[in-house]
Amino acid sequence: MDGLQYCNWSRAIFEEMRDGGVDVVHATIAYHETFRETVDRIIAWDRRFADNADLIVKASSLADIAAARQGGRTAILFGAQNPSPIEADLGLVSILYDLGLRFMQLTYNNQSLLGTGWQESYDGGLTRMGREVVREMNRLGMVIDMSHAGEATTLDAIEASDAPVAVTHANPRWWRDTARNVSDRVIDALAANDGMLGLSLYPHHLAGGSACTLEAFCAMAARLAGQIGAQRVGIGSDLCQGHDDSVIGWMRNGRWTFASADNPNGPAVLPVQPAWFASNRDFPGIRAGLLQAGFSPTEADGVMGGNWVRLMQRVFRGEESSGVSP
Amino acid sequence: MDGLQYCNWSRAIFEEMRDGGVDVVHATIAYHETFRETVDRIIAWDRRFADNADLIVKASSLADIAAARQGGRTAILFGAQNPSPIEADLGLVSILYDLGLRFMQLTYNNQSLLGTGWQESYDGGLTRMGREVVREMNRLGMVIDMSHAGEATTLDAIEASDAPVAVTHANPRWWRDTARNVSDRVIDALAANDGMLGLSLYPHHLAGGSACTLEAFCAMAARLAGQIGAQRVGIGSDLCQGHDDSVIGWMRNGRWTFASADNPNGPAVLPVQPAWFASNRDFPGIRAGLLQAGFSPTEADGVMGGNWVRLMQRVFRGEESSGVSP
Repeated sequence: MDGLQYCNWSRAIFEEMRDGGVDVVHATIAYHETFRETVDRIIAWDRRFADNADLIVKASSLADIAAARQGGRTAILFGAQNPSPIEADLGLVSILYDLGLRFMQLTYNNQSLLGTGWQESYDGGLTRMGREVVREMNRLGMVIDMSHAGEATTLDAIEASDAPVAVTHANPRWWRDTARNVSDRVIDALAANDGMLGLSLYPHHLAGGSACTLEAFCAMAARLAGQIGAQRVGIGSDLCQGHDDSVIGWMRNGRWTFASADNPNGPAVLPVQPAWFASNRDFPGIRAGLLQAGFSPTEADGVMGGNWVRLMQRVFRGEESSGVSP
Repeated sequence: MDGLQYCNWSRAIFEEMRDGGVDVVHATIAYHETFRETVDRIIAWDRRFADNADLIVKASSLADIAAARQGGRTAILFGAQNPSPIEADLGLVSILYDLGLRFMQLTYNNQSLLGTGWQESYDGGLTRMGREVVREMNRLGMVIDMSHAGEATTLDAIEASDAPVAVTHANPRWWRDTARNVSDRVIDALAANDGMLGLSLYPHHLAGGSACTLEAFCAMAARLAGQIGAQRVGIGSDLCQGHDDSVIGWMRNGRWTFASADNPNGPAVLPVQPAWFASNRDFPGIRAGLLQAGFSPTEADGVMGGNWVRLMQRVFRGEESSGVSP
């Protein structure tokens, strides 16, 4: 399972998922979209599921994931990288849950109604509405994703949540020092919460950027596994395949600025992926790299997806007997 | 089961459902609402379900209905009396299905994007989009409700549908002659389609209006059962309890006129219910009346709800083994 992708979705990409043995993908359906726009994104996905029914299937439960795997198709789980789809309306959390949303970030770079993003100069932590949304996500069984959040907000959310919390796509700050990656305090809090960190393959999150080697990435994963346990490590590739640079403008600027927002990652262009991770076809190579770095086959299988399943088993409601083994 | 209600919902009304032994209610959630407004209505229902969890439960399947009955609660099924919630967007049909919508009228009095309502002077039948929506409702398993439609549109929809069609709340025109009630051509088409007619208890649909007697109502039901079979007759009370007269203005005028629309039913005031049907508590009396009118106990049970369940078994998808007996 890949813990996060936002591709310019196409049949070719879905074929690559099958080629790469990727059984589950958490797909971002919204960055800055309103509720109504998010519904349009879901409708577009409905068409993709109908047009590519031999390759992909919508999943909103572990039972759906198990059925997809049995049918040789990739299960697509919906997520939002921003709480914009719920607007200022707590009731929309369960509406979006009913429409299949299973992951939601509380912030995306900026201050949101729920908390503070990593690019703000001051992080006030979880807001009043943020605490309500955490409770509602816990109640429904939606994964709280703290990627792109500030540290104080992340720590607040982990403390407030009754369920394990994920940072679906980021790396340790000790490996690449950017506030977009997670500090040791966050890593320790995730471990204490029995949450998960999904390791990102986005060049701006990698030590050495686009030149990062598979060996260096897997060595980082091994060190992190020593820090918090291999069972709390996953992959969230942040794969943005098939887009042109304009997508970076949408991600960074949304509609909150008329200018091109200053960004620590520099110009608004898609970075070049490392040679060893250009598409879903490259996941088997990562598993091989993990084994080389000292992970046991069982541990490597966990990082490659089993750990995400274990997380969802604990977050999703009433899913104890889903038939999906972690 | 009551095939249609639109009350000013309150705990007192839910208690009356339990008192009257009403296990299932098809509740109208939209008359003229846009998609977004309909979502707000669903959120309001989510609060009602949370606040009255001992009395009512949301249902979107026969399994939900069976579970509600076992738990001594009334199952609420969502429906719309107008296709306004899908706006001009075919994709919203499945979105609303995912949010629990299980009944939808194709028109409400006026011309809609899908067909013609009974108050228009010309009925052009099912539109191009109407045919698409019928196909989509068939695919998803949503009950096509032709109440408030014109005759040509109703006959078109019955012909176009692969699944049984319902007129959830209307009476035969031979009993009270208004175009809001159904003609013999529609009755025959419903029978041929193995659909259903839900008998209305709204005074404007009753012979004699508010003065209609239980005996006259049940005699009509018996004659109709002779015409199309007792298994195709149900109750759709159209109960509008607890509202003030302003609700009639909303129903009739929506936002399509600034005036008070001319209406064959006269002034925009809520009519007085017949003495024998003022609330959900009065359903047992109707069953007794049906027995008096010659229905067998099994037939009466069918009219009081079993026939609706049988209809839903044939319309809903994958519900063959739901554990609810008709």
